Amino acid sequence: MTLVLDPAAQDLLFREARTANTFTADPVTDEQVQAIYDLVKYAPTAFNQQPLRVVLVRSTEGRERLVRHMAEGNQPKTSTAPLVAILAADNEFHEELPTQFPVFPQAKDVFFAERPVREKSAALNAALQVGYFIIGVRAAGLAAGPMTGFDADGINKEFFADGEHSVLAVVNIGKPGENAWFPRNPRLSYDEVVTTV
Amino acid sequence: MTLVLDPAAQDLLFREARTANTFTADPVTDEQVQAIYDLVKYAPTAFNQQPLRVVLVRSTEGRERLVRHMAEGNQPKTSTAPLVAILAADNEFHEELPTQFPVFPQAKDVFFAERPVREKSAALNAALQVGYFIIGVRAAGLAAGPMTGFDADGINKEFFADGEHSVLAVVNIGKPGENAWFPRNPRLSYDEVVTTV
Repeated sequence: MTLVLDPAAQDLLFREARTANTFTADPVTDEQVQAIYDLVKYAPTAFNQQPLRVVLVRSTEGRERLVRHMAEGNQPKTSTAPLVAILAADNEFHEELPTQFPVFPQAKDVFFAERPVREKSAALNAALQVGYFIIGVRAAGLAAGPMTGFDADGINKEFFADGEHSVLAVVNIGKPGENAWFPRNPRLSYDEVVTTV
Repeated sequence: MTLVLDPAAQDLLFREARTANTFTADPVTDEQVQAIYDLVKYAPTAFNQQPLRVVLVRSTEGRERLVRHMAEGNQPKTSTAPLVAILAADNEFHEELPTQFPVFPQAKDVFFAERPVREKSAALNAALQVGYFIIGVRAAGLAAGPMTGFDADGINKEFFADGEHSVLAVVNIGKPGENAWFPRNPRLSYDEVVTTV
């Protein structure tokens, strides 16, 4: 066994987990989302900056406000998933660094005084956290349906009126329903992805 | 138990895993990297685009070429880690879509004809894959030391002469050595990160 991780966990998180396109009516509870967050929050970000912010869309009104900004092909599943989460980068994450990166609290001003620098760092590190979050959803025995087909400016204005957030993904979450997945797509081979120098 | 994932796996991947700053001399084999890739390759990307490319730095010459582009504080550990991996986005990922996204092979031209669109999509989706890769390194019982402190233009020119790749992270990989970690930093609370509408 080259991997240490239990094979059942490998299946749960990677091999058998799939992007679901339909869901059962079973609700996704706040307790489940909290457990997911309390697991994946430990995964690393640069300077411990943790720029990911999550908006859970639970109200009928919130759902309508979101769906209208989704690409047409994504609207039916975004309308019907038990829970939809908007995952965004907080471009003002540096405000938290004095408490979150206490070994060098000056990082806030020394490295992140300029907005373009923050936006670039937040986009990368929040995307790492989107990856961790998707794995966390699967760790809860749920299927994730991450989407990037939406009007990003529209969602940013609709849900982040402060102008300080950039949506990265919208994720449908729930138990997979009937005909939940398309056939698995191929994957690039090791030799197409990994080279050695 | 709110999470389905085995608690030992939760510890291995998230709670007890840490960003290592020192490593033992134990080598990291190609078999281990292949097992990591063959696990995390299944995690999702938009249009199955899989833009992540990995350069394993194994030769003394390759190590020297890399270390000179690292921030000074990252040079000692990059010099001594058993294995260093350069993780980059391939901005020409769309060339693979006809085989990798067979349900809509036209995606290559319909959605990704323009370089700026590809760069943005590759940056986001390869960053997701960097997150998956870090989890995969931990699944192999190894510690990852991801870094973003480097001269990105310098690395791109040095290792990707085709001008089509953008480095996202450099990751030290190995078994944790003596005094491998700093004290764990705090994490933002659930209520600081998650809101509901």
